[in-house]
Amino acid sequence: MKIVSSEQLQHKIDQKTKPRGSLGMLECLAVKVGLIQNNLVPAIINPHILIIAADHGIATANLVNNYPQEVTAQMVNNFVKGGGAINIICRHSTIALAIVDAGVNADFEENMPIIHAKIRKGTTDYRQDNAMSIEEVNQAMELGKAILNDIVDTGCNTIGFGEMGIGNTSSAALIMHHILKLPVADCAGRGAGANDEQLQLKINILQQVSEFHELALKDFNAVELLSKIGGFEIAMMTGTYLEAYQQNMVIVVDGFIATAALLLAMQINSKVLDNCIFAHTSKENGHTKMLEYLNASPLLELNMRLGEGTGAALAIPIIQSSVHLLNEMASFESAHVTEMTSA
Amino acid sequence: MKIVSSEQLQHKIDQKTKPRGSLGMLECLAVKVGLIQNNLVPAIINPHILIIAADHGIATANLVNNYPQEVTAQMVNNFVKGGGAINIICRHSTIALAIVDAGVNADFEENMPIIHAKIRKGTTDYRQDNAMSIEEVNQAMELGKAILNDIVDTGCNTIGFGEMGIGNTSSAALIMHHILKLPVADCAGRGAGANDEQLQLKINILQQVSEFHELALKDFNAVELLSKIGGFEIAMMTGTYLEAYQQNMVIVVDGFIATAALLLAMQINSKVLDNCIFAHTSKENGHTKMLEYLNASPLLELNMRLGEGTGAALAIPIIQSSVHLLNEMASFESAHVTEMTSA
Repeated sequence: MKIVSSEQLQHKIDQKTKPRGSLGMLECLAVKVGLIQNNLVPAIINPHILIIAADHGIATANLVNNYPQEVTAQMVNNFVKGGGAINIICRHSTIALAIVDAGVNADFEENMPIIHAKIRKGTTDYRQDNAMSIEEVNQAMELGKAILNDIVDTGCNTIGFGEMGIGNTSSAALIMHHILKLPVADCAGRGAGANDEQLQLKINILQQVSEFHELALKDFNAVELLSKIGGFEIAMMTGTYLEAYQQNMVIVVDGFIATAALLLAMQINSKVLDNCIFAHTSKENGHTKMLEYLNASPLLELNMRLGEGTGAALAIPIIQSSVHLLNEMASFESAHVTEMTSA
Repeated sequence: MKIVSSEQLQHKIDQKTKPRGSLGMLECLAVKVGLIQNNLVPAIINPHILIIAADHGIATANLVNNYPQEVTAQMVNNFVKGGGAINIICRHSTIALAIVDAGVNADFEENMPIIHAKIRKGTTDYRQDNAMSIEEVNQAMELGKAILNDIVDTGCNTIGFGEMGIGNTSSAALIMHHILKLPVADCAGRGAGANDEQLQLKINILQQVSEFHELALKDFNAVELLSKIGGFEIAMMTGTYLEAYQQNMVIVVDGFIATAALLLAMQINSKVLDNCIFAHTSKENGHTKMLEYLNASPLLELNMRLGEGTGAALAIPIIQSSVHLLNEMASFESAHVTEMTSA
């Protein structure tokens, strides 16, 4: 198989009617998509946002979360009715949106237009127990892979992962704490809007969780870590990342929780990163350090901290623009424009 | 007339199904557009990019520019044929694009689908003379206002200004030098790609121009300054800014040259800034300092330095998203979602 190189892609860009390098990150994006697709004429086809929703046992104690657990199910209903932020952004950018129930603590009607993949009605409170069994982690990851393949079957080659799960910034913070070996206080953030006192309580609780599971003392693999302090949506997303890489998809990485799931996926296959484009820098404390660890420069920094894949959805049109520019701009030769005399 | 307040707009946003403030700059954008339009249900209608092209006498000496002057006319032809970067971005984002000849050094056919508003075939080389007469400045600004009004008549309420003109970063740097009272070396940049030696030559030349016109010694008003070291496209753009403000338009500010023209417009009416949304931070040296002077935080930072309104065109979909979110997201009440318990 002929392999398209970054030099070939950059050469094509350099023939376009513009000063060299003047499209900045759009040029890097076009090269990246061309490399992922191994194509000098890449295309973003039928882009999707996949929102995976699940509940967290720890949220029932209302110690680390500002919204009560039932909001997860309420928001799934809101997404189905088209009223969430992600619905609006996707609708106007022609991005398909799919919602997965990976473990919401509610009974959804079978005919509800979501992907039904419930592992269990919320994880176990991980303060004194494992969040889920190893079997459940594997089940969630396998379901994630199957769901991803169904989306690929629609012709989709570009995907961003979003999430909904009251309490899930705590799980993501603990994952970051373990993998990046940073103090809990550097990883925990305000989530949906904790004040200073609530944030301190959250840090204290998560510190206790870290000690209970020996997160700072031992090394766990991704499956073990998910079993201890993960969430069903995060486990499933880990599986979708791995399969999206196998399927040569362009993966648009959203915020704090989506990046935590990427960290897990990279523990299993570090090459997943090759297919990732980072959408935005979240305001959630910790995300910036995650991005530094990954040496990632996101496209957007809009002070957002909503999740749902909203950052990924806003970035997809910019990625599309980069590919359109690569494919559709005139060259100096075709447009009879004089090239730069010297540089 | 009832006046919509920022508090009313923020209150509407705060009822939406999301943690307060979690949409970050998108919330600020929605408030800004609502205030400009004095409407709790604002809308971005028929957005336009207006590219104004003109030539600069100084460019014939090939001292401050890497591309020869004829590239201005070649690029106008390229825009008309749809091959420029701005064509591609506008086409895929449903943004209308209009091209103005404000003073290109070429004869365009009368039936060429551009706005014919040529003042003269390029300014006078401002190294030893004024770039244009006071009458020409006024003529360019008045033509800009008339062109803007024709665009308003199409129902357009949102506009970004782009430019094409070999040598025009020099003019913009001198405008910045005079208005911000900064050394020439802080204002001049690499333009289309000057190397270190070329940049130093450009700085030396512009320093001589500054001395010849006494730019660091005296205070000139916008019209006087344009007459001395301006460009026809910059003078015309100054007029379009002023009229866009009068017409209550949302003005999307592009890069270095577009921001220089805004600085001039603000010398005449500082309230123009109220209607401005800053699209992106250009890589052109000087733009960051201009933005600091204006206390502006652009939406995008993509290392671009192309002009043509490309940054504005990439930002318009994000502005549209902010308005769609304000108008279309469900509220906690309508979606039966529990509000935050405390914060």
